[in-house]
Order: sequence, then C-alpha cells, then structure tokens
Amino acid sequence: MAIVGGSEEATVVVRNKQVILREYVPASGFPKESDMCVTTIGTIKLMLPDQVGSDGVLVKNLYLSCDPSQRSRMTKYEPSTNICMPHAFTIGKPIRGYGVAEILVCGHPNFEKGDLVWGITGWEEYSVLTKPAADTLTKIQHTDVPLSYYTGILGMPGMTAYIGFYEICSPKKGQYVFISAASGAVGQLVGQSAKLQGCYVVGSAGSKEKVDLLKNKFGFDDGFNYKEEPDLNAALKRSVADGLSENWENVGGKMLDAVLLNMRIGDRIAMCGMISRYNLGQAEGVHNLIYLVAKRVRMEGFLVPDYYHLYLKFLELVLPYINEGKIVDVEDKAQGLESGPAALVELFTGRNVGKQVVVVALE
Amino acid sequence: MAIVGGSEEATVVVRNKQVILREYVPASGFPKESDMCVTTIGTIKLMLPDQVGSDGVLVKNLYLSCDPSQRSRMTKYEPSTNICMPHAFTIGKPIRGYGVAEILVCGHPNFEKGDLVWGITGWEEYSVLTKPAADTLTKIQHTDVPLSYYTGILGMPGMTAYIGFYEICSPKKGQYVFISAASGAVGQLVGQSAKLQGCYVVGSAGSKEKVDLLKNKFGFDDGFNYKEEPDLNAALKRSVADGLSENWENVGGKMLDAVLLNMRIGDRIAMCGMISRYNLGQAEGVHNLIYLVAKRVRMEGFLVPDYYHLYLKFLELVLPYINEGKIVDVEDKAQGLESGPAALVELFTGRNVGKQVVVVALE
Repeated sequence: MAIVGGSEEATVVVRNKQVILREYVPASGFPKESDMCVTTIGTIKLMLPDQVGSDGVLVKNLYLSCDPSQRSRMTKYEPSTNICMPHAFTIGKPIRGYGVAEILVCGHPNFEKGDLVWGITGWEEYSVLTKPAADTLTKIQHTDVPLSYYTGILGMPGMTAYIGFYEICSPKKGQYVFISAASGAVGQLVGQSAKLQGCYVVGSAGSKEKVDLLKNKFGFDDGFNYKEEPDLNAALKRSVADGLSENWENVGGKMLDAVLLNMRIGDRIAMCGMISRYNLGQAEGVHNLIYLVAKRVRMEGFLVPDYYHLYLKFLELVLPYINEGKIVDVEDKAQGLESGPAALVELFTGRNVGKQVVVVALE
Repeated sequence: MAIVGGSEEATVVVRNKQVILREYVPASGFPKESDMCVTTIGTIKLMLPDQVGSDGVLVKNLYLSCDPSQRSRMTKYEPSTNICMPHAFTIGKPIRGYGVAEILVCGHPNFEKGDLVWGITGWEEYSVLTKPAADTLTKIQHTDVPLSYYTGILGMPGMTAYIGFYEICSPKKGQYVFISAASGAVGQLVGQSAKLQGCYVVGSAGSKEKVDLLKNKFGFDDGFNYKEEPDLNAALKRSVADGLSENWENVGGKMLDAVLLNMRIGDRIAMCGMISRYNLGQAEGVHNLIYLVAKRVRMEGFLVPDYYHLYLKFLELVLPYINEGKIVDVEDKAQGLESGPAALVELFTGRNVGKQVVVVALE
C-alpha cells in the first residue's frame, strides 16, 4: 500500500488483482481457463467520495458468483445473431458478474461507507461502480447469515427459484415437480421450496454424488444421474409414473424432450436457462414441442431482474426457512481470485456441487 | 332405395358410400390417396328412433372437414409412443372427422329430427352416432350463412382461432402479429381477427397465390411465401422490423426457430398445431428455445374442445362480422365423397387454398 500525498484517505493506492478476459471464446465450445488470466500488477486509488461521483461507489469485493449466464458474455456475437445476448465482456478488462461487496467509498445517495451490498461487480479485488451498475446494487440488511448466501440463496439464484416457482409455475400440494440441473444454485432451492409446498419432487443431476445430495440433503423424493440413463424418458417415467405437473427447466435439449413426453394436461414449464446450450454454436434441437399442444402446456421463459421489486417479499419468506434450517444452501467455495477462472469454466463441465462461489477476501 | 316391410319410415335401406381406411400410414411420410378407398357397396337401414337408442342419432352427412389433426389418427402408434395421440382410426371402417349433418332419426334428448348439427362424424353418406360422439354434436341455430361454414369459420377452426387469439394471446391494438400457415382454415381467421383488433398482421404461406390472398382478400399488412425464402429470419425481419408481439404457430420446425429470433420482450406464442411435423416420424428440431428465456416469452399449447363452453360467446362475436362482410371465409370445396381422399392428403402438400371441405350431399 502506497500513501501518496498528505492524507491517507485521499490517496491510498492499493494493489488490485483482476481476472481479465484475454480473448473471446468461440460461440461453439467450452470456455477454458486460459481464456482468462489473473493479473496482480494493477493498482487502484482509494479516492475521495467526490471522486467517484454522485452516482458511484468504490467497493471491496468479498464473494464472486459463478453463473451460467456469464458464458454468453465471453463470446462476441455478430450483431445479426446477438439479438438478445447481453453485451460481451471487454477484452483486457475484468469480467463481471454477481458478487457481494463492501462499500469503501460512497458518492451514491442510496448507500453509505461500510454498507454491504450484492449485485453486479467486477472480478477484481476493488471495483469502481457507477451508473447504471451502482443503482442496481442491493443493500444487505440481514447479516446473521453467511454473506456468501447473497450470491446464491439470497441473491439472484434464490430470486430466480422464487419467481419461477411462485410466480410462473405456482404448483400446488401433491403435484409432481421435476427439476433438471437440480443440484445447482437454482435447482436445489426450487426443489426444497417444492418440498415445503408439499409437492413430490424429482431431480436430475450429473453424478452419483449430486443425486445423493438431492435425496439426502435437499429431501427430494427421487433423483437420477442423467449421464447414466440411456433413455431419459424411461428414467422420468420410473420416477414419476403418473406424469409431471410442473417442470423446472434448466437444461434444454434431450432432457426437455423427455420432459415434454411426460407432462400432464395443463402443466407448466418454467424456463430460466438452458445450460446444455450455452457452449453450443447451434443448440440441440427440441423435437417434442407438439406435446405442448396435446397436453395444453404453458412454457414460459423469464429473467429475474424483471422481478427484483419483489425482493423484500422474497426475503420475508426465505429468511425464516434458512434460520429454521428448513432450506439449506450448499456452496462450493473456491478460495481466492486466482481460483476464479477454473471455478467458472468448471461450472459447464458440472464439477461444482451446489452454488459455485469465489472467495475474494475475508469479511 | 329398398323398402322392406310395410312402413317406409321403419325400414328404408339406402346405399351408404364410405371412405374406408385400407391400412395404417407409417408414422413417417405423407398419407396417400391409396391408403383409403371409397366403397359404394354398403347400405344402411334408416331405422326407427328407438333403434338408435336414447343416446343416438342417425345423420345424413352434408359437409366433411379436412383437418390436419386427422393425420395422426391414420397411424397406429406403439403404446409407448402414443402418449397423447387420439385413438387411431379403425382399418376397414370409415375415417372420422368434423362435419355438418342433418338428423334423420333421433333418439337423443338434445336434438330433433330435421336438426342441423356440426361435430365429429364419419366419412360416409349416413352415420349412426351414439355416445360419446352424439353428446358432442352442436345444434346449428343460424342457417342464414352457408352451412359449410360450420366446418370452418363457425366450427372447430373458427373456435381455435378465437380461443387462441382472445384467450391465449390477447393482442392489443398496434401490436405485431405473425401467423404461419396463414391462408389455412385457422390462419385466415386469426389474421382477420387481428386486423379487426387493429394489429399489424404478417402471414406466411406456401405459394404466391396464397400470399396474394392474404394481402388482397384477408387484408394482411404483409406476407411471404416461405418456400421461396432461403432465410426465414430475414423474411420475418423484412416484414416486421421491430419484432413480433404475438405469434400464431401452426407450423413448427424452421419457421418457429425464425419466429423465436424475432419475438419482442414479454410476447406470447399460441400453439395450436404443427403441420410441418405431422408427417415426420421424428419432428424437426427447434433450436432457438433459449430465446423464450431471454425475451420472457410465453408459449402455450391448447386444444379447442376444452373451450367449447364458450361457443355461444364466440358466435355472438363472429356472426355479425360475417354478416357485415368484415370477416370472409375462403373455402376450397371438393365435390363428392369420392374426392375426399385426395382432398385430405393434399392438405399436407398445401394444395388447398383456404378451408378444405368435402361436399357430400346438397343441403
């Protein structure tokens, strides 16, 4: 730490380790660790509040979240195909994503120095966030839970589970719910919510360890390892002989085709992502959409930022569940920013168990 | 006509020409005329009311409807794949479908001799209909329109257009609506309804003649011949530069993929069928479902029989439109039961223009 000038507060300069995107990832194919690099040569000046502007904050990042949606920002799409992709990351700059941070310097009227917040930040030790990013930060009011939960159960994945489950699917007691990618950040929460609602819950995941977690830790009624099932339709039938009522779709492709064969009349499919598609230039085709007609099924996509005005309502529901141990959040914590690139790319090979978090600094 | 016994009413025996299914059509491939045959050797006894039973009627069929959904009943699916297909037709028996008929002999409490009805009947000159078919017949109250309209605009296709448009999509004035298979029985009605609602309406069809019909007869704002468009995405963009608001999906496959690329945020897709898929053992894959998430789109399948309780409400809306000439119904009439097999199979090659009807008898 270098102190320049007379006032420590004014001009402390600190190292700012960063995860930089070295080059864009082709649309087709998995991202590699080497697409990113960790630099330790950068510094940042811990400036005065008036230097971050009336819409800005300077934060110290504590936890960073690995989310499937970051994949699409690692590719630069041609304008013609980039119809609804978020802006690509900038080469040579830190990648971005959800995280938990502490405000060190504050010019923004919604926050104060020392506030803990969650929202979109940079993959680096310190970030200056201005409009519009700073406006979308959420102040953390409840600190009696692990702060890393605000990257998972109490952050975007938790809200995704809540909105898809209560606002899109609205399953009722006794109904049959199937969740693909069920041990992931969102899936595990949907499954536990469905159990609390009195549903019969089945999940699929990509290893025996994960399936055990579904059944033994999250209380799912049944689960299967999709990698060991030659016939996904048969696997679903075995678990839910009478057909599904609701489906939480995280995967797409062959799994969605099997789900479509097993829906019941009037059922609903909430779609919050398709992890099987993110690394494919051309997504796997889905062949059984005709069953949407025959079974009168509603399939609905949603993006959780549209629903952030319901965040306080969500917290009122979920915080007591967490405090009473009725919902557990399994996290997979990678230690240090250096481990970030590996943690992120392994999300797509399914190495993580539960919510993948990168620990940047101790609280 | 042979009169047997002393009373004409009791025992008139008449010829009963029939369209018989000779053999099941493979799941993959188009049906052929030769899969059916027209027999003229059968007869039917015009029995007494008590002979048709308290739940039965004997009808004289006037018009028969060619509908895409008849295709799936021409194949005998293995029980494991036949998850939501209707029962296959019976080999050696007349095929079945919607039609308009006159009740000649009536034992059913809902009807009287001489009533005109529409509903599911046999492809033959005369049919005995008992439970449950007779219960689902609808008495025709308004005969100041062509009776054949009850196979189209005032029957199942009309109700399909109405329900999908008003109950599933609910588009608003100024919104952009795209309809695939737009010159068909349902598509033409959806398009005209959308125009009456003040929408901007674009349709696709399979010939220049049909596209001319869309624009000049049905008042569509734009249309294109999908067979001459190497890039359906580009064709849609050309017609609706700002993206679609609502989509009426009759086709599936590549057209649905192009539609998914061009939806606007929060849009809706009503799915009432997928004619591109009916003759394929394995349907064409749909690759762009991820856009349901990114654009928060709701895609909903429906079957119109679930909504027949709304039929009178539908008639109140549509009859004035017909009488005032605000909605036109273009029909493609094949003359005589003999022309039925060709009319039905040509539905799938797109030869028909408008609602394909088979005229069995003069009114």
